[in-house]
Amino acid sequence: MKIQSYIAGQWTDGQDQGVEVFNAVNGDSVGWVSSSGIDFTQPLAHARSQGGPALRKLSFHDRANRLKALAQHLLAKKEEFYRISSWTGATRIDSWIDIEGGISTLFTYSSLVRRELPNETFLVEGEAERLSAEGSFIGRHILVPKEGVAVHINAFNFPCWGMLEKIAPSLAAGMPVIVKPATVSSYLTEAVVREIIASGLFPEGSIQLISGSVGDLLDHLNEQDVVTFTGSASTGQKLRSHPNIVTHSIPFTMEADSLNCSILGRQVEPGSPEFDLYIKEVAKEMSVKAGQKCTAIRRAIVPNNRIEAVSEALKARLSKMTLGDPAQEGVRMGPLVGRSQMKDVWQTLEQLKGCCELVHGGTTDFSIVGGDREKGAYFPSTLLYCDKPLSTDAPHSIEAFGPVSTLMGYTDTDEAISIAKLGRGSLVGSLVTSDNQEAKQIVLGSAAYHGRLLVLNSDCAKESTGHGSPLPTLVHGGPGRAGGGEELGGIRAIKHYMQRTAIQGHPTTLTAITNEYNPGSRQIKDPVHPFKKHFEDLQIGETLITHRRTVTEADIVNFGCVSGDHFYAHFDELAAKDSLFGKRVAHGYFVISAAAGMFVEPSPGPVLANYGMENLRFVEPVAIGDTIQVRLTCKQKIKKDRRTEEEKPNGVVVWDVEVINQEHTPVAIYNILTLVERREE
Amino acid sequence: MKIQSYIAGQWTDGQDQGVEVFNAVNGDSVGWVSSSGIDFTQPLAHARSQGGPALRKLSFHDRANRLKALAQHLLAKKEEFYRISSWTGATRIDSWIDIEGGISTLFTYSSLVRRELPNETFLVEGEAERLSAEGSFIGRHILVPKEGVAVHINAFNFPCWGMLEKIAPSLAAGMPVIVKPATVSSYLTEAVVREIIASGLFPEGSIQLISGSVGDLLDHLNEQDVVTFTGSASTGQKLRSHPNIVTHSIPFTMEADSLNCSILGRQVEPGSPEFDLYIKEVAKEMSVKAGQKCTAIRRAIVPNNRIEAVSEALKARLSKMTLGDPAQEGVRMGPLVGRSQMKDVWQTLEQLKGCCELVHGGTTDFSIVGGDREKGAYFPSTLLYCDKPLSTDAPHSIEAFGPVSTLMGYTDTDEAISIAKLGRGSLVGSLVTSDNQEAKQIVLGSAAYHGRLLVLNSDCAKESTGHGSPLPTLVHGGPGRAGGGEELGGIRAIKHYMQRTAIQGHPTTLTAITNEYNPGSRQIKDPVHPFKKHFEDLQIGETLITHRRTVTEADIVNFGCVSGDHFYAHFDELAAKDSLFGKRVAHGYFVISAAAGMFVEPSPGPVLANYGMENLRFVEPVAIGDTIQVRLTCKQKIKKDRRTEEEKPNGVVVWDVEVINQEHTPVAIYNILTLVERREE
Repeated sequence: MKIQSYIAGQWTDGQDQGVEVFNAVNGDSVGWVSSSGIDFTQPLAHARSQGGPALRKLSFHDRANRLKALAQHLLAKKEEFYRISSWTGATRIDSWIDIEGGISTLFTYSSLVRRELPNETFLVEGEAERLSAEGSFIGRHILVPKEGVAVHINAFNFPCWGMLEKIAPSLAAGMPVIVKPATVSSYLTEAVVREIIASGLFPEGSIQLISGSVGDLLDHLNEQDVVTFTGSASTGQKLRSHPNIVTHSIPFTMEADSLNCSILGRQVEPGSPEFDLYIKEVAKEMSVKAGQKCTAIRRAIVPNNRIEAVSEALKARLSKMTLGDPAQEGVRMGPLVGRSQMKDVWQTLEQLKGCCELVHGGTTDFSIVGGDREKGAYFPSTLLYCDKPLSTDAPHSIEAFGPVSTLMGYTDTDEAISIAKLGRGSLVGSLVTSDNQEAKQIVLGSAAYHGRLLVLNSDCAKESTGHGSPLPTLVHGGPGRAGGGEELGGIRAIKHYMQRTAIQGHPTTLTAITNEYNPGSRQIKDPVHPFKKHFEDLQIGETLITHRRTVTEADIVNFGCVSGDHFYAHFDELAAKDSLFGKRVAHGYFVISAAAGMFVEPSPGPVLANYGMENLRFVEPVAIGDTIQVRLTCKQKIKKDRRTEEEKPNGVVVWDVEVINQEHTPVAIYNILTLVERREE
Repeated sequence: MKIQSYIAGQWTDGQDQGVEVFNAVNGDSVGWVSSSGIDFTQPLAHARSQGGPALRKLSFHDRANRLKALAQHLLAKKEEFYRISSWTGATRIDSWIDIEGGISTLFTYSSLVRRELPNETFLVEGEAERLSAEGSFIGRHILVPKEGVAVHINAFNFPCWGMLEKIAPSLAAGMPVIVKPATVSSYLTEAVVREIIASGLFPEGSIQLISGSVGDLLDHLNEQDVVTFTGSASTGQKLRSHPNIVTHSIPFTMEADSLNCSILGRQVEPGSPEFDLYIKEVAKEMSVKAGQKCTAIRRAIVPNNRIEAVSEALKARLSKMTLGDPAQEGVRMGPLVGRSQMKDVWQTLEQLKGCCELVHGGTTDFSIVGGDREKGAYFPSTLLYCDKPLSTDAPHSIEAFGPVSTLMGYTDTDEAISIAKLGRGSLVGSLVTSDNQEAKQIVLGSAAYHGRLLVLNSDCAKESTGHGSPLPTLVHGGPGRAGGGEELGGIRAIKHYMQRTAIQGHPTTLTAITNEYNPGSRQIKDPVHPFKKHFEDLQIGETLITHRRTVTEADIVNFGCVSGDHFYAHFDELAAKDSLFGKRVAHGYFVISAAAGMFVEPSPGPVLANYGMENLRFVEPVAIGDTIQVRLTCKQKIKKDRRTEEEKPNGVVVWDVEVINQEHTPVAIYNILTLVERREE
């Protein structure tokens, strides 16, 4: 079988036979991988001329809806992916993380985008920046999709998740992708990409696949492209200093394996729930994916007086971790992805054994259940002990990318933090303790060296997603050894594929560009009340100036009665004299309620509900005798998809509201959110 | 005179004589610059062991107050800086941009930080992320200062601003800096650093200066350090691929010269206000700092039918731009920074002349007023014309870093955008037009290639800060040729010097770490009403559960009367039946007013004012007969500095409020902001 590439709308073989890839369980041939003969300018040109322009025409919500449909499509095909995934040595649980974890990333990004981003092709970020005294010159920030290609170079360990977690934010941003999986497990990625293409959900040119070497692809990238890399630090560093990437300042996001640690708190007693949690978590992180995870726990940092207890408990637990063919009943850990990987891990273990003591495993004296020991890539779970962690470099810098961890002791919390930092930058660290003050000290003390930190205790353990799992809403990546990149983390990840641009000009100009009302922008007057207009008919900048209302002592009294709020600043003349205000003033809630009384049109209309408010500030007090008036301006419109057939087509309208007094001084400023009916689907 | 370095608390000379630097006006010697003999591990060790730890102990507000005091200190010394600045060839206006523009960056960052950041040593970003069904496991993001040194390698053109705009966000973030100015104008940077050190405002080790070469400094950086570079693309690319920077994934922010463009709109007629604005802006950007600005206009893109008119108008304006010694009356443009720079510009101009026609200047046939023509570094303002901009590469890729621009024509808007993009990534572009739809098309069409875009018209011209001025609140930097970096841009710039870390755990743990209440966190009950407590005595998580209130028809009627809000959903049973709610419901504003009536303690106490509200959502309607109850929880405390002696010491307390109904379903959720008195200064 040939593992194919998908280039410029065609599935294609390499011109030579290429590299053979094998089933990790029994050494059977899976197929051949080659990209030779491909003209690598072709996928770039195709993405730039077809995929990019087509994606950029879609709005964020359009793209998000397609991501959801894609997730559903892939979910329906999952059993085929599980079947293929087992060839990589993955257990059912390992595959679940890769396949269903990957698909869930698509679902998460789809809903994040629909919830947090506008239904536009570009993004406005932050508030207007006032750049001038009179307000005729302001600034804002927008983000537009980069007009190039995102090249995703992925690691072998998660052929499905590793691709989907990167294409979700890329496609959401409006940027086409070229996926390059690691050769050894590329057959699973290929199978998933076949289904993505078959789904027809994204425009042609949005997704291409290179199975095999990327050849001279990187030589042809330009300043609008982006590269993300997951894999070994050495390869990542080579690619990052690629002359073409440097010359064109091409954003390069790297996520590399790191020597992640897990710390056991000082007060955790053997036999306590937290002690058991620690043992389970370390053993799990050593064995899931046979330890081939960039987030695996490589360093177990425990109080010196717990070394013995932890060591015994881990040995006991690891001994029960049956190794073999994942298809066999009772097998808890599968083989490594291939025999070349297995040889690497043996070699690295030898280096570690030079300065660490072997506590468990680490020899060829192990048994497997099923599978072919000679042809498969089996490696036993292995625990080392380092007795001088502060002065021994190897366990903090040499990584055996398999089920291998090193135990090390500390005397006090500062020392635990120092040892954690010796990893020189990690994707993730964890801490098991029920002492939240200890948690605070360790988290704040070691955060500068970590992309993610988990605090595990018995209160959260049941629902914890664990040390090793990156989550779509949280940043994934870490400083230093971990590559210095950031993936995922909600909307942040989408912005990696976009260009942020500051725009400056008159507020009216910026309103025209951003489709959001900016303070100082021209206001549009219309005899029809804005609450009488359908979503489509409202114009950004459309403004209602209401009648006025004089605030009286009776208003304060009546409002106090109906609300029950008899705060001294409204009702106690003696105390109010000594207050900030110097006299009785109206309730702030009265001011915004009276404002609604002035701007609301009482009879039924397209405004279906007032459902929220943002950024309310009571700027000046309103005294008895003051006369207030309201300006209501249409600030922003967000078209919503109908969730059910019954739901009336609608959208959210954000209104900019300002209540002023008789001196034209603002007394309250805020935004209100209304749901407004659309005339048409 | 020796231009000195400030290393590890000492002003120091280099061991050899070093490089001589000259007055650009008359060629007089200014002094000698050398860093030879410096052990570059010393400033790094000093910053890491002294400056960093001391800065990290200060809160954001402490650091901000020091930035403000520093700005005031430097402002008092400005005339000395102006005197020294004139040696660089700067006119008074050029120096104003550099000196007072730089100092204003300190003021801006000081107030930004006090307004937008908490009074803490670390930063919590975004909202809590719910990671589990029951809510016992959540995530948040924090940012802590990186524990290394920020090395700032600066360009020659703004020896004061270039330093201050980078140290402001670094010091605000809590990261010490080592400043390395370009040698040719390092004497001004040295003079300013002397005053910074003399002020004693920042802890020793916060700021160090290397005058001269950085030697092997970069070899000793590690994963906690940051490098920012401003200067030529070629030097920047060399530094970015420095093996040690690559190996340790050291963040490298580059801001390089780019071939910025300014576009004249299609409909702008000669003689119109926008036409005059365009001519003034291009001429200004060519001559300010004698064109030695990374943001200068290098490409003037105008409609083909305006080439003649623009060319004539620019020639006329440039002819009046008197060149000479800035100290002389009437001189509008000074010399370049030095004769070596001058030779470079002549050489580059020769290359451009190979494919562009000379329209104005560009020969040695020019006169100067005052100064020494033979010893100074004078260069005439020079305009070229390129007749085939789509097929000629040079004017889009070769930069003469002096008063040199190229005029080029376009036929339609798409072509103007295409020509703009040929710069392959710019710091800034501008557009002069009164047509906001044209502005929208050009801005959205070319934003992916620009870090900043200015739209100039007669409405904003009076207050515009111009094409060439980066502003502290707006991003500065651009993709591709411009280096791919981002500086400034408000709080964004501070985050470049911090590590973002996702933290996960039980809400109570995350509350303890972040000092912010997280949903699901343990609530603290106390018999004393929270409004009776001073700022210091309130604990995060302290919660009041109020009495209940049954909402009646009379409440709706009374609330309608006092507010004047008679919206049909509250008052018209017939229309309300067809509404989203199916019956009359209470006003949302009634619900939050009644909530205040339940949680407010009426007698005077430390709560001075309710001044705002955030994130209000009306989640469920409240019907007649429903019974509501309120939970009020202390979410966050922000200690405020006293602005006047009279002001009572106080702080902002953010409260998390939830109104529930008889089924314990939330009906409204929001945050309120109160000003609460502190017991002590």
